[in-house]
Amino acid sequence: MATEDGDIVTPWDVKAASDSGVDYGKLIERFGCSKIEPSLLERFEKAIGRPPHHLLRRGIFFAHRDLEQILTMYENGKPFYLYTGRGPSSSSLHVGHLIPFILTKWIQDVFNVPLVIQLTDDEKFLWKNIPMDEIIKLARENAKDIIAVGFDSKKTFIFNNLTYMGQCPEFYRTVVSIQRMVTFNQARGIFGFTDNDCIGKIAFPAVQAAPCFSSAFPHIFGHDGVGGAKGSECDTKKAAPMQMSVGCLIPCAIDQDPYFRMTRDVAPRLGMPKPALLLSAFFPALQGSVTKMSASDPNSAIFLTDTPKQIRTKINKYAFSGGGATIEEHRAKGGNCDVDVSFQYLRFFLDDDERLEQIRKDYTSGELLTGNLKKELIAILTNLVTQHQRRRAQITEAVLDEFMTPRPLEL
Amino acid sequence: MATEDGDIVTPWDVKAASDSGVDYGKLIERFGCSKIEPSLLERFEKAIGRPPHHLLRRGIFFAHRDLEQILTMYENGKPFYLYTGRGPSSSSLHVGHLIPFILTKWIQDVFNVPLVIQLTDDEKFLWKNIPMDEIIKLARENAKDIIAVGFDSKKTFIFNNLTYMGQCPEFYRTVVSIQRMVTFNQARGIFGFTDNDCIGKIAFPAVQAAPCFSSAFPHIFGHDGVGGAKGSECDTKKAAPMQMSVGCLIPCAIDQDPYFRMTRDVAPRLGMPKPALLLSAFFPALQGSVTKMSASDPNSAIFLTDTPKQIRTKINKYAFSGGGATIEEHRAKGGNCDVDVSFQYLRFFLDDDERLEQIRKDYTSGELLTGNLKKELIAILTNLVTQHQRRRAQITEAVLDEFMTPRPLEL
Repeated sequence: MATEDGDIVTPWDVKAASDSGVDYGKLIERFGCSKIEPSLLERFEKAIGRPPHHLLRRGIFFAHRDLEQILTMYENGKPFYLYTGRGPSSSSLHVGHLIPFILTKWIQDVFNVPLVIQLTDDEKFLWKNIPMDEIIKLARENAKDIIAVGFDSKKTFIFNNLTYMGQCPEFYRTVVSIQRMVTFNQARGIFGFTDNDCIGKIAFPAVQAAPCFSSAFPHIFGHDGVGGAKGSECDTKKAAPMQMSVGCLIPCAIDQDPYFRMTRDVAPRLGMPKPALLLSAFFPALQGSVTKMSASDPNSAIFLTDTPKQIRTKINKYAFSGGGATIEEHRAKGGNCDVDVSFQYLRFFLDDDERLEQIRKDYTSGELLTGNLKKELIAILTNLVTQHQRRRAQITEAVLDEFMTPRPLEL
Repeated sequence: MATEDGDIVTPWDVKAASDSGVDYGKLIERFGCSKIEPSLLERFEKAIGRPPHHLLRRGIFFAHRDLEQILTMYENGKPFYLYTGRGPSSSSLHVGHLIPFILTKWIQDVFNVPLVIQLTDDEKFLWKNIPMDEIIKLARENAKDIIAVGFDSKKTFIFNNLTYMGQCPEFYRTVVSIQRMVTFNQARGIFGFTDNDCIGKIAFPAVQAAPCFSSAFPHIFGHDGVGGAKGSECDTKKAAPMQMSVGCLIPCAIDQDPYFRMTRDVAPRLGMPKPALLLSAFFPALQGSVTKMSASDPNSAIFLTDTPKQIRTKINKYAFSGGGATIEEHRAKGGNCDVDVSFQYLRFFLDDDERLEQIRKDYTSGELLTGNLKKELIAILTNLVTQHQRRRAQITEAVLDEFMTPRPLEL
């Protein structure tokens, strides 16, 4: 799993070998995905008739697989759908967890496409020592946070595996079809499994892979291709799991790439299109960019349940500064935006390019002090989190059930 | 998988090292199950107030695990249920396939208990090169043959995994709970998997194990223990997969024992009772008892679709004889019932003990000729098969759907 220089990037573990964080250039090379070049962003802008989202413009989503093909589909009026997900291991998400959902919502709005969101409660049950009923509850709580990002219930299906597997035979049929194509040797090569891993872990990658194939959602896509009308009920007697080939685009952090490398390897053998990917860098912990934020260390992250006071305190106290040790030194030498966590967070959440560039210049020159930079971030995150909390408070169990009911989506 | 003397017995392969067939004594020792002793049969007879079925009396079901505990449950008025199954790899069953179902039906009738029958279409999809829709069709066709054995729809639920997994979340939840408890190392030790086996095969044993736990059938047993009323619908939000502990008895051939050894190992860690087993010897091929009958060699078996003429021809032509080479030799030296396939088949299907004993004596002494022994068997199998065909012709799709619909059973 580790490169020669020692970065560890798996779906379960991210650790950079050096203090400057994960070497994304090397990761692209090792994983075999592609950098998002300026020319591709230009084509993207042309296709949608507006500038790409700042998470794309700023290279936070920095790599991809087959994004061109999705754009070609769109240009030719062919349908595709979005797929992303979350492993529900804690009741509260942190702001970093929002990143793929923010971009996914933007893409859904811009392209007007259906979206499926997988909550891998089975994965967390297999990897963590949490009781099953607890994990299923966490999945539903997490779904409320996801819905609060602003997804449209007419176009969005959210499911937890431990429930959806028992709601639609086509899901398991697609999982088994994938499992037949992947040997233990291959799974070990991709995920680093050992002989002491439980057979559930070894089999799980096929469960995360299955939603890449529209066959897993007959209620959305129907059995004859696209069109929700025919697919409103799962067919329990007949199997036609691999006859629906609708393009799939997955926005996610790059640590999830191994799942989809495996998926892309089996897709042609199943007669299905390979899923396309939009891959993001990791959201840094408050302490710096060596690791991802961790939900298990409350001081490493800003949570969506934090109060304004907690946000202020955490950022002032823990956000790693790239500024000078003293005001005098800062004025003289300036700050280092590349390592300054507050500035990095602004890259994720401040959508005004000019304002961000002004802050970058002023901080780099030493004109803007760390305290003021943090003040700017505190204001933005406080607004983000309180707005989120307001929206989340309105997500009733009925709204949740609406999103989580297998049903035809608007295509 | 092989003993020192070379018998191979796995769920996918049975090959005896010597011409005298599988050494069942050694198998009992190697598998760690128990011989069914006369004293246990006496207790059985006492508990049910009638003689045990001839498949038990004659030692065709010759080994067990925890059968005493099932009898104790029955004596104390505690409920248990039956579980058996079939891998649907061919459209027609042969007479050997009936054996576990014949005993299972008898036990169901005598003890008045519910029965679940698993059709492992997912297993056959993983192991055989047959398309998924074809396998699901085979499962449904096989189910009709099973129903024709005479099961009571009020007390019997038949399911194919590729469908039932998508009908009831508790099934997958139980599967994952088991998968978490078994490492690849352990699965390899029990089943002989290699690194080149697909991850679907490696994960599958948990699917065959799951029906040993009543938690997989909330529609039958309810969430609070026994009682179908509360469990008529699967609960998609809450998980309480391991809170229903009803005893389970599995009649099957001994090659299936590895699955249930694994299951019995995980049961206590899941807080569930270990399933009990009733294990049969293999039904010999017409050519002799070295291997099981094989559905892939049409001349090795009497199929439930065979005509009277086919039955007559196959037995006369292929049934291995323990008689003398000539009539004179046979009259002089007598026949060997131990290796004579026709006599062995009579042990399985002729329920009249006195008549069987008479045949044994007369054949052993040389008084009864091979041709007459075969004539006896032909009459019995022709009757069995034509009766079966008559009953099977009455199994409509509606009857099949009734058996295969998840629903409360009469307890």
